[in-house]
Amino acid sequence: MKLINSIQEMKSLRKNVRGTLGFVPTMGYLHEGHISLVQQSVRDNDTTAVSIYVNPTQFDPSEDFQAYPRDLERDLKLLETENTDIVFFPTNAEMYPDDYCTWVDVEKVTARLEGEIRPGHFRGVATIVTKLFNIVQPDKAYFGQKDAQQALVIKRMVKDLNMNLEVMVMPTLREKDGLAMSSRNTYLNPEERKAAIILYKALSLAKQLKEQGETATANIRNKMELLIKNEPLARIEYISITDTQTMEELPALASKSLVSMAVRIGKTRLIDNLII
Amino acid sequence: MKLINSIQEMKSLRKNVRGTLGFVPTMGYLHEGHISLVQQSVRDNDTTAVSIYVNPTQFDPSEDFQAYPRDLERDLKLLETENTDIVFFPTNAEMYPDDYCTWVDVEKVTARLEGEIRPGHFRGVATIVTKLFNIVQPDKAYFGQKDAQQALVIKRMVKDLNMNLEVMVMPTLREKDGLAMSSRNTYLNPEERKAAIILYKALSLAKQLKEQGETATANIRNKMELLIKNEPLARIEYISITDTQTMEELPALASKSLVSMAVRIGKTRLIDNLII
Repeated sequence: MKLINSIQEMKSLRKNVRGTLGFVPTMGYLHEGHISLVQQSVRDNDTTAVSIYVNPTQFDPSEDFQAYPRDLERDLKLLETENTDIVFFPTNAEMYPDDYCTWVDVEKVTARLEGEIRPGHFRGVATIVTKLFNIVQPDKAYFGQKDAQQALVIKRMVKDLNMNLEVMVMPTLREKDGLAMSSRNTYLNPEERKAAIILYKALSLAKQLKEQGETATANIRNKMELLIKNEPLARIEYISITDTQTMEELPALASKSLVSMAVRIGKTRLIDNLII
Repeated sequence: MKLINSIQEMKSLRKNVRGTLGFVPTMGYLHEGHISLVQQSVRDNDTTAVSIYVNPTQFDPSEDFQAYPRDLERDLKLLETENTDIVFFPTNAEMYPDDYCTWVDVEKVTARLEGEIRPGHFRGVATIVTKLFNIVQPDKAYFGQKDAQQALVIKRMVKDLNMNLEVMVMPTLREKDGLAMSSRNTYLNPEERKAAIILYKALSLAKQLKEQGETATANIRNKMELLIKNEPLARIEYISITDTQTMEELPALASKSLVSMAVRIGKTRLIDNLII
């Protein structure tokens, strides 16, 4: 496993990679969700590269950039076990030098939900992903469905800017009780951890209501809200039922609809989604 | 010479290019300035591609997008003569489909001069150039010093986004009387054409003043203004003396300074610059 922290070194190494290169961009503190992406890349490609970089520009000043969990040593051990070929962990100084001033903006699909609540977040995401794609030059890049809007933003950007790679969006991995895996779950104390299953319960309710014949999204959202409000540690930021491509809110369920939500459990902000 | 108007076809062709690829992005209506870029690319590279595309997103609604001169047949004859290997002329429908929504924004170096007077102009330029770079995937791309701020924006973007190519900025070509070559010169009637040499005269005056020992940029700008105001058909939009990299206005000349200007001759907006 090659460990690389210089952009130039990563680019030089890339020139000598033969066959296909799969790429998993991460912010580290890896969990089974990330590992499932790495495993898929290893299955699909001749070489797999993983980046570990907590990107400052996708956090806004009020957010948890400094507190975001980091454990490079543990991450490297996990990646070694998974037969990762290359780990790229660049420095802030090289990624964003003092005179840095170029940004990639994806409009429309970022107007609502995470984009609305976290201004500048997707600009930071689109920019760092563009940079990483240019440095690593993958044939395929792997993202989790857990960040549904992020996956759409990346797909949209790759198509619009005519980038030369395929975006692979892989299923959300869940704990046994249904909680979606996330590095932020480590913020939860034991009581909050129990309360956090309410997100998946609400998503499952939406699925069940559809199966029972409900089509009015307002009714589904109301029942999800009632369920979550029974959990005293939970505070809803949004519950949304949208088109899976445009992120536009649906009055009635389509054949496939994206149910997504952001809920605070105590101070920790969790997101989750299900396509029903 | 291969003529290509589909993005997919251009990408497929690119895969089979061996050796280095030089690229000259243009809006067509080629003049000797463009041709000098093509010649440089042919000298430097195994293969040369030229794009011809009048990019709608770099014109604002009040500008001359519809009226911008076009003559594809003549352009193709000129490029054939210069041993161009590939000409790429995509359609608006393919470059900007209805759901298009991704933009590349270069800040700081676009804050003033052309960026200030033409809001959105450099966003359109940075976006189309990113798209063309991803489609054509050149090793070197050639731009003219005539559009000095544009050249800086592209260089900045390539560096910031870690793109895999070298930006080559080539000297401005001039008519015998000093007028910088530009597709927009065709808008000038004979009287205006004569008046248009005032731009180069003013730039030459700046150079001469420096050689005589003047260092205060305010004095140089004043004398340039006085000269241009003697030309009844000319109306100054700006005269600027800046750092050649940051585009920040200089109070005193540096060892190298960028003198740039935009002047309307009748209705036609001309720009020119000189590094002194």
